[in-house]
Amino acid sequence: MKHLLGIDDLGAEGIAEVLRLADSFLEVTRRDIPKVPALRGKTVVSMFYEDSTRTRLSCETAAKRLSADTMTFSAGSSSLRKGESLLDTVRTVEAMGIDAIVVRHKSSGVPQRISGWIEASIINAGDGWHEHPTQALLDAFTLRRHRGDSFAGMKVAIVGDIKHSRVARSNVKALSALGADVTLVGPPTLMPPDLEGWPVTISYDLDEVLPTTDVLYVLRIQMERQQEALFPSLREYATRYGVTRERLARLSADALVMHPGPTNRGVEIDALVADDPRSVINEQVANGVAVRMAVLYLLLGSGEGRAA
Amino acid sequence: MKHLLGIDDLGAEGIAEVLRLADSFLEVTRRDIPKVPALRGKTVVSMFYEDSTRTRLSCETAAKRLSADTMTFSAGSSSLRKGESLLDTVRTVEAMGIDAIVVRHKSSGVPQRISGWIEASIINAGDGWHEHPTQALLDAFTLRRHRGDSFAGMKVAIVGDIKHSRVARSNVKALSALGADVTLVGPPTLMPPDLEGWPVTISYDLDEVLPTTDVLYVLRIQMERQQEALFPSLREYATRYGVTRERLARLSADALVMHPGPTNRGVEIDALVADDPRSVINEQVANGVAVRMAVLYLLLGSGEGRAA
Amino acid sequence: MKHLLGIDDLGAEGIAEVLRLADSFLEVTRRDIPKVPALRGKTVVSMFYEDSTRTRLSCETAAKRLSADTMTFSAGSSSLRKGESLLDTVRTVEAMGIDAIVVRHKSSGVPQRISGWIEASIINAGDGWHEHPTQALLDAFTLRRHRGDSFAGMKVAIVGDIKHSRVARSNVKALSALGADVTLVGPPTLMPPDLEGWPVTISYDLDEVLPTTDVLYVLRIQMERQQEALFPSLREYATRYGVTRERLARLSADALVMHPGPTNRGVEIDALVADDPRSVINEQVANGVAVRMAVLYLLLGSGEGRAA
Repeated sequence: MKHLLGIDDLGAEGIAEVLRLADSFLEVTRRDIPKVPALRGKTVVSMFYEDSTRTRLSCETAAKRLSADTMTFSAGSSSLRKGESLLDTVRTVEAMGIDAIVVRHKSSGVPQRISGWIEASIINAGDGWHEHPTQALLDAFTLRRHRGDSFAGMKVAIVGDIKHSRVARSNVKALSALGADVTLVGPPTLMPPDLEGWPVTISYDLDEVLPTTDVLYVLRIQMERQQEALFPSLREYATRYGVTRERLARLSADALVMHPGPTNRGVEIDALVADDPRSVINEQVANGVAVRMAVLYLLLGSGEGRAA
Repeated sequence: MKHLLGIDDLGAEGIAEVLRLADSFLEVTRRDIPKVPALRGKTVVSMFYEDSTRTRLSCETAAKRLSADTMTFSAGSSSLRKGESLLDTVRTVEAMGIDAIVVRHKSSGVPQRISGWIEASIINAGDGWHEHPTQALLDAFTLRRHRGDSFAGMKVAIVGDIKHSRVARSNVKALSALGADVTLVGPPTLMPPDLEGWPVTISYDLDEVLPTTDVLYVLRIQMERQQEALFPSLREYATRYGVTRERLARLSADALVMHPGPTNRGVEIDALVADDPRSVINEQVANGVAVRMAVLYLLLGSGEGRAA
Repeated sequence: MKHLLGIDDLGAEGIAEVLRLADSFLEVTRRDIPKVPALRGKTVVSMFYEDSTRTRLSCETAAKRLSADTMTFSAGSSSLRKGESLLDTVRTVEAMGIDAIVVRHKSSGVPQRISGWIEASIINAGDGWHEHPTQALLDAFTLRRHRGDSFAGMKVAIVGDIKHSRVARSNVKALSALGADVTLVGPPTLMPPDLEGWPVTISYDLDEVLPTTDVLYVLRIQMERQQEALFPSLREYATRYGVTRERLARLSADALVMHPGPTNRGVEIDALVADDPRSVINEQVANGVAVRMAVLYLLLGSGEGRAA
């Protein structure tokens, strides 16, 4: 495996390998000195054409814990303002001897395009509405820590703005590859137009879905979408799809609640839900570092100097 | 000690411990390879919600000289623009396994609030008008390098915009805890309204105070305050409170002149004063790295791999 | 040698030393673990007052491959907004114990001025229209990899906006010091007014120059210059001076095509030229890291822990 552009690059077998490897890196991150020399001398560059705190810091933490060197540039502070083309930028970065580029871009397909131009490994850290594969992997890893390897028959409901969510797309692929049953829940205006072929069930009624749900995956409502009039109001959205304490009470006692963060408390999720014992939202973040270490290691590791 | 939110967290005994430890780290910073492995594997994140060159670079240098990994994000380049709450950001950073957060924020009390949410150590790098404890510690350390441990009876005059100065507040606490006599000097409009209880003398007349001053601590005039009409004009301010060569001549030959930087030359301090042999302004900056190493080491060090 | 402000600091002997040293660092950059401990414990700060991706990342990569610590600040995110003077900033950075400052500034002479204030080494990464010495060194190094040490009589044509180009100025100095014959090509409005004394030939006709050119060095057209009406239009410029496939065909089979990047494809250079076997544009970028390692090593290295 050379790049991680989307979940399809991995398949069920590849996903399982990432998750197994992440187990040993999770152990590394809990050590007193949570570092291994696995990627010493490798250089990982973050190219973020969209703002991000958590994904960028998580990837950089992962690279540093593997002893790689890291550099970062964001759209605002780089010569992108000079009108430098993406191709030039990427070729420049590669010519410097960089080993991997972690890229986030508002346009779908940019990581794929870049991977065709250069020899360095590309990790897609989110491209438009398309994919966010490391998020789906850390979500699967979090589920596996709680439920073991038996995803078969697990009922996952993904709730929210499915249409504009790269997190939803990557999760549908990963979870169904692992054998889970995925239901997408949200208003019709926030469902993708091209749903045929997706291995999912559709529902417009969260309350109906809740009692049989094992995993409730709540998506972030992107506030800027409201201007596009895709839903009447935040209040209306919260009334029908917000995960309130009342709705939480209808979820089974051993269900899990997930969210890719950052949450809009009081909109798609109640402020108190994050503190419910069934919430694994903070675990998702912590697991993100271990999963990204696994991905970087698979793409760049030589087999020597390995974690354990 | 887990956090450094303000000088009161330390007390006289804690301040003395930081200063003693900073002595040995100052020696480290002068070595050919000015690094020790004391914090290898620890990660320190700078979260700066206000612009800063000197404090951010000083803290990062301190962390690197202790072999910690560092990451940084500033308000502009982060998902703060997405409307992510401070709570979410901080929890995210902590969930990634970060050991310490160095935070600067325009609102007083933010570091305190953050410290209640998470397990990582918080270092206050300046919050509103409230405190800037590492600045006061490096100031005390600089004085101690020149005067030894005997702060008792030392006459320190802090001159300028006391009202809006977190540097003044932290220094009043630290210096009076160590036994110095502090006089606050400035126009009445730049004095805090709540002065009762402060262990200080007040003066509106710099010229009267100068001859008996051992340490003249000059605060930065924040230019943007002028719009609030707190003083008639910069020229008027400089005439009455600016540290000119004439005023410097009235200071005793073994007095010290300090400034937290950056200076507004020609406003609160004459361009030439910084080069006077009594000025220790550049020493303050140099000492800042050693003092911040001491603070990071006290908060994060295990006791093993220690400096000396 | 303490600073690298311009090519004159080096002379022909110094240039040759950088190029020889870069040879061994190029070998380092091709190792499995492309790092040497030569500058462990040294700290290099990038101060970029102008946007840059390639130069900043190249210098940081070079510093990291020498095991130096790196920090960066750019004009936007620093306390420059506070009105901090250049002098204060630089003195602060130095007082922290920084060993070298890599500085880019829109005003000619800023690195020179800084070098008079402090003890740290200054590397000029581009100042106004004045010089960009590490670019010229990496260009000379790239030529040397292809042609060996015999620059004598080599015919180099530098094409474009000579007037506003620090790259042209540094290259004229370096190439003529090494013995090459330099011809400057461009419209009269883009020629510097002070050409007497320059060791160059002038031409306004690219087509005439091409057949006898060994090295065609194409400068970037800075789009913002067009507003100053220095050339009638981009189309007009491209027609007369753009390096098209037709023009490329008139160049000899063993000529080399160079560009400092990023290219404006379709303006000063055809999109396909960069992929011509005679183009060494990507090599220039790759060589940049090795050359900057050589410069940093010459300025900061102690002689111990040397590369080979």
